[in-house]
Order: sequence, then structure tokens, then C-alpha cells
Amino acid sequence: MAEARPIRVALLGAGSVGSQVARLMHEHAEELAERVGSPLELAGVLVRDVNAKRDSDIPAELLTTEADALIHSSDIVVELMGGIETAKEYLLTALRTGADVVTANKALLSEAGNELFDVAERVGAQLYFEAAVAAAIPIVRPLQESFAGDRLQRVLGIVNGSTNFILDQMDRFGTSLESAMAEARELGFLEADPTLDIEGYDAAQKAALLASLAFHTLVTPEDVYREGITGVTSELIADAKSNGYVVKLLAIADRIEEDGQERVSARVHPALIPADHPLAAVHGGNNAVFVHAEFSGDLMFYGAGAGGVPTAAAVLGDLVTAARRRVLGGPGLVSTWDQRLDILNIAEIETKYLVRIEVTDAPGVLASIARILSDKGISVATLNQSASANPSRATIIIGTHRAQEASMRAAVTELTNSDSVFEVTSVTRVEA
Amino acid sequence: MAEARPIRVALLGAGSVGSQVARLMHEHAEELAERVGSPLELAGVLVRDVNAKRDSDIPAELLTTEADALIHSSDIVVELMGGIETAKEYLLTALRTGADVVTANKALLSEAGNELFDVAERVGAQLYFEAAVAAAIPIVRPLQESFAGDRLQRVLGIVNGSTNFILDQMDRFGTSLESAMAEARELGFLEADPTLDIEGYDAAQKAALLASLAFHTLVTPEDVYREGITGVTSELIADAKSNGYVVKLLAIADRIEEDGQERVSARVHPALIPADHPLAAVHGGNNAVFVHAEFSGDLMFYGAGAGGVPTAAAVLGDLVTAARRRVLGGPGLVSTWDQRLDILNIAEIETKYLVRIEVTDAPGVLASIARILSDKGISVATLNQSASANPSRATIIIGTHRAQEASMRAAVTELTNSDSVFEVTSVTRVEA
Repeated sequence: MAEARPIRVALLGAGSVGSQVARLMHEHAEELAERVGSPLELAGVLVRDVNAKRDSDIPAELLTTEADALIHSSDIVVELMGGIETAKEYLLTALRTGADVVTANKALLSEAGNELFDVAERVGAQLYFEAAVAAAIPIVRPLQESFAGDRLQRVLGIVNGSTNFILDQMDRFGTSLESAMAEARELGFLEADPTLDIEGYDAAQKAALLASLAFHTLVTPEDVYREGITGVTSELIADAKSNGYVVKLLAIADRIEEDGQERVSARVHPALIPADHPLAAVHGGNNAVFVHAEFSGDLMFYGAGAGGVPTAAAVLGDLVTAARRRVLGGPGLVSTWDQRLDILNIAEIETKYLVRIEVTDAPGVLASIARILSDKGISVATLNQSASANPSRATIIIGTHRAQEASMRAAVTELTNSDSVFEVTSVTRVEA
Repeated sequence: MAEARPIRVALLGAGSVGSQVARLMHEHAEELAERVGSPLELAGVLVRDVNAKRDSDIPAELLTTEADALIHSSDIVVELMGGIETAKEYLLTALRTGADVVTANKALLSEAGNELFDVAERVGAQLYFEAAVAAAIPIVRPLQESFAGDRLQRVLGIVNGSTNFILDQMDRFGTSLESAMAEARELGFLEADPTLDIEGYDAAQKAALLASLAFHTLVTPEDVYREGITGVTSELIADAKSNGYVVKLLAIADRIEEDGQERVSARVHPALIPADHPLAAVHGGNNAVFVHAEFSGDLMFYGAGAGGVPTAAAVLGDLVTAARRRVLGGPGLVSTWDQRLDILNIAEIETKYLVRIEVTDAPGVLASIARILSDKGISVATLNQSASANPSRATIIIGTHRAQEASMRAAVTELTNSDSVFEVTSVTRVEA
């Protein structure tokens, strides 16, 4: 074992994840060597400014700003620098030299995954990215390997810890959106500019990756219908609760087969899920990915979806897999999504809805609402009318059976224009 | 691709799982061939009585009673017949011929796993058993692969669907143990002789496998401390609920490091877990395995833990992995547990407890109970005294901080002997 040629590893980036990977590689060197069959040798750590990292735990002689030299002298390149253009350039260089690549960069993968896979396939190198979707939660590998004898039909993910923390605070402690956001910011869950999280962009990138992996087809973040959580009110949270639901920001990917044609739907939006559904028990900043497969049935993978150490653990897992394959040979993972299945427009999807309507409290109002819904082919499953704060109005909460989004949107327009209706306060999709 | 030599697969057993594996292999032949790189050919299906299976979907010419001939002509042997002695003999034969082996037989693995691994290692064959612990839930592979850069510290599993169904009925609908058992039997969740499930033997076999996998050490079912659910009363369920807990039958495996010495604790018993813990949301006949790892943090894997089709899906996943490795070469899984770490006696474990005591409603009683607990080093975290049905008695429910089981047992003996105490009604461990 001692004479085995070491596997040289380049680390691109020495931020919160990169520095943890360097630390774990050092502290667990012996164990890792045993699992791989060869020692892992840190060839160098690419940083923007060597002096700025002088005080880190990484030995100074390993710090470098020479990307090309580092990449060309490495067997495996681990990209943890983030960003797209430069990272892509480095990884293409790495793959072309025959190096295997490990990355946690979801933005890069959802933008340029196919290009990277193509090059990797051509040169026989491998691209690993377990940490890109949900940090330490093993979801990429099961999607690539465990369902080899199965067909995935649906993926529902809570893939953004910040927004889950916020919605969970609102649900469990009756906090307003504003205070929950303030608390999230204080705890470091939110960046100074929280747009990527709050508006669902981060979740949409992960939804694109999950859909691509699950259905072996290219889905880009632009294909993903996206709504953030800024429209989630305390009122909606309360309505959800009294109807047996909780509100979660879900990344949803569906494979839809109609008339022998296969299409994919991918979307991110706040959704209601039954309070006894396993996803409802995902509290705080945690993530979970719920999968429905034809034979395996319902499965869920749960854990911390972010954080330097859990992400580093996932990167290290990939690193061991890549290194073992270099030492022992064998099949790589199947990671191309070279199909291009059609993507459903949001208007085409079908789901259930919970609708809150403020109406004038007059005779005939209920009949008029029921008629508008039924005219659009929307069937009512539950209806609850209660007094409103304003004595001349009433609140109606309607739960529908499955209906098409286009029909629901048409119904909402008609409801809004109706004399009986003061306001359609909220329309929320019900999933799972 | 068409000329690639087919991989010959022997199926031992044609019961509910075996017949599904045969069906899926047939229906998905093309897709499987593509994933493996060679077609999978069903070499034969070993049955006890060929005539008894004539009407099954398996082609009659594939049915055989000649185990030896079938095994000797196969590349991969899939054992789904159950039982220990004969199955072991067949699998040893298979491994010695260099065939890889896939099995869902937890009893066999927990009894003779090490012997099988030894032979496999000697001949360079592989032993796959994803379906043995929790059917379609991918737990064996993550434990073998995903934590390569991490260290597992604790595994908490709901690994028996029948007992989870029963406890869930009691918790959600206030059903008695007897009626919940009757319902479970009616729905096919329980065998005519429910002992294996109800008394925790099935869970103990799985706990042994999980502990062995997680900590790379041999843990046998005999090493596992075991209590079933027959002592779980509606009263305990209600107490749990009013204290924010649910009752689950848990398989628990802990790695304990003290003074540089590593030991393992493995036990199966009803336990209280907080109502907002992800394991609390595992309803009906579902299973889940919750893992705590040093770097990855908390992770949970959830899904159907039984059933012909989900189990067959897991077997097929293993079959694809085994076949791909035969076609493409490469490293196998690391599956030996050749360490033999010491197992803690149940008296040595430390956990929290919820204790229900019926006392005489007289002055000084509370002080006397508090003294007994404190003498044993048990610290009270919560205490609630309420009126009992009998006016001369009161009910005290105590939640403790962590204490040693031996101390708790000694305290219970002393409490039971105390004049102030009518009865110690229940003592339940609180986990997670």
C-alpha cells in the first residue's frame, strides 16, 4: 500500500467548503488512503490571493494562483470556487487532460452540465457532483444508481434551507414573513441580498438538476417555472393549518406520459402539503427530496442541505469514489442527460388548489362562485364559509379536486370580475 | 452491444419477490441490457415443486429443482428463497464458483454474513444485499459508500412496518393495541404468528445488520437488546402525546468512545421521540433509517420497507450493479465487518426516560420520590402531578435528564418498594 502512486488532488477555492475539504483530507489521510488503495495527495489549492489565505489552516506552500500548472499536475480536480465562466474553463481544461472532476457548483452544472458531460465522456473522465444539489444528503448517487431497475415519476424537494427556515418559523411560531426573514438573516441563513433564496432562483437551479437526473433529460433553470415566498402571508399559513396542511417552498419535477408522448414539468413555488406527509416534518434549515418511483414507491432523503462541513463530507465521498475508480478501474456513473423532452408550460399542469375568496355577504353569492368554478371544469372538494372582519363580507375557503392551471387562472379572472367577489386573496397549489 | 455475452442470472425462489424480479427482468430487458452493457439472461428459477409454479408468469422451461446445475451455469445468483441452512449452502457454492450473489435474506446475513463475506473476498466475488434491511430504501449502499469521508455515530431505524403500523394507529386514532393488531392482521401486515414482528425479532436482525454496516464490526442479533411492543398501552401513547412525543419501535445502534476505547450499543425497544422529529412523521407501514454522522450531520432515508415490488426493485438495482461490474470491471463494495468491537450491556447505556408513577396522595410523597431519584444520580427535567381515577392516589409523570439504565433500574426497584408508591406504571426510553 505504501508504494502505491499517490492520487494528486487539486482544490480550486479555499472558502468555507474548500478549507474543510483540505482539513478533512489532512486529518483523515490514513483512513482515506486505506479506502482508496492509494494515498490522496493535495497537489495545491488555487486561491485568488495567496497572502489573503496565509492565516488559514492550509500549508502556505500549497497555496497557488497558477491554475493551469496546478490542473495539469493533478489526477482529480475539485472545484469549490463558485461562479460560472472561470470555473467552467478550469473544469474543461481538467477534463481534457483526463483528470476526473468533483464539483459542488449547481449554477455551473445547470448552465453547462451537458457540455462538461460531453467532454468527460469523450475522454473517459468522470464528473461527480453529489454536493451540488443537497450537500450531504446522498441524492445524486441514488438517482444515478439505485433506480437502475426502476422508473422515476415524480420528485418533490425542499432544497433551499433559508426559505424552509422562514416558512417553518411562520408555521410553528406564527411569526410574520418579515420577522422570520430578519431572524433568518441574523442566524446567517440569508445573504445581504436574499433574492436568490427568497425568489426561488436557488431552488430552481436545483430543480433543474433534479429533473435532469431523474428523467435523463436536459432541464435548464430557465425551463423551471418559479415563484418565491414573498407572497406567503400569515393568513395563508393559518388557512393551511386549519385545512390540515403546511406551506413549503417545493421544487417539483414530474414525468408526464400522454398518448405515448413523454414530457417533463419542473416548477418551484410555495405549495401546501398534508401535515402528516413526511416532507411536512422537515423543519428549520433542513432539506429533503421526496421521490416517487414506479416500483420502489415513495422514498425520501433528508438532511442538512447546506453548511461547510456537510458539503465537504459529500465532496470527500465523491473524491473517494473518483480515486477508487482511478486505482481500481471500473464503470463510471451514467450522468448524461442528452435527451431533450418537452417541458410543460405552467398553464398545462394539473394539481389541486386551495383558494381563499373574500365575498359580499349576500344571497346567491355561493351559487355564483360555484357556477364560475364548474363552468371551468373545476370540481370543489371542500368549502368553508366564515364571517369576515368586515361585517358586510364573508370569507370562503375552497379546496378543489385536480384541475388544470389554465382553468384555474381563467376562473380566478372571472371570480375577480364578479360582483359577488371582493377579492381572490390567495390561490395555492396542493401537492403530494 | 448485441454480440456482448449475456450475463446469466439464477433466481433461487419464486415467491412474491422472486416472481416480481423475473417479471421486471423480462419487461425491462432492453433497458437493463443498455445500463449493464450486456443482456441479462434468466438462466433458471429454482423452485421446490415445478408443478406448483406451472401457472406463474415464469416460463415453465426455466423452472428447475436442480440447484447445483443452475448455480454452476450462472454468473450471478439471486437468493430470494429465505431460510438459513439451504440458502447458505447454495450461496457458498455460488461464491466458490466465482459467481456474484444478491440476497434479500437478512436472517441469513445476520447469522452467516461474515462467513459469506470471507469466501467472497477470497475468490474476488461480490455479495450485494440492498433489499435485506429496508427493501427499496437505499440504505445499505449509502452506508457502504456515501460516508467514505465521514464517521457514523448513531443509527435510529423504524425497520419493521407491521409494528409501525400498529403504533401509528394507536397514536393517530386512539386504537387499543389489540384492535390495531387485528387491523394489521386484516391488512396483511401481520403473519398468523406475529411473534417475529411484535416481539422485535425482525427489527433486531435489521439492527444487527445496520450496526455492522455502520461501524464496520460484527454485531449479531444475539448482541441486540430486544423488547417488543406488547407492553405499549393506550395510556403510554397518551402520556407520550401530552409530553410532545410519539412512541416508535426503534432499532438503535450507537458507537460509543470512552477513554480511547470504542464500543457499540445495539438495541430494539419502544422509544419516545419528539413529535417534530422526522422519524415521528413515519406513518403506517413505512420504514425510515435516521443516521447521525460526524460531518454530514443528521440524515434520514425513508420509504416502503417491505412488499414484493419495492423489494424486487432493490434486488434489481443490485443485479444491475453486479452485472455492470462483471462487464466493466472495477472495485467492489467494502462489506466485511471483521472487527469485533465490544457490545455494551443494556445496563450500561445512557438515555433519557419518561416515568409514570401512581402514588398515594399524601404529604411528603413527592420529596421521597425526588430523593430516591437523586440518590441514584438521576436528575429530573420535567415533573407533572395530576389527580388519579382513585381519589386516594395521584399520577406523577417524570421526564429525566440522561441517566444510566442501571441507575434507572435500581431507582425503579426502590420506588416500587417505597410506601409512597403504589406502582411504577411505565418507564420508557426517550431517544433523538
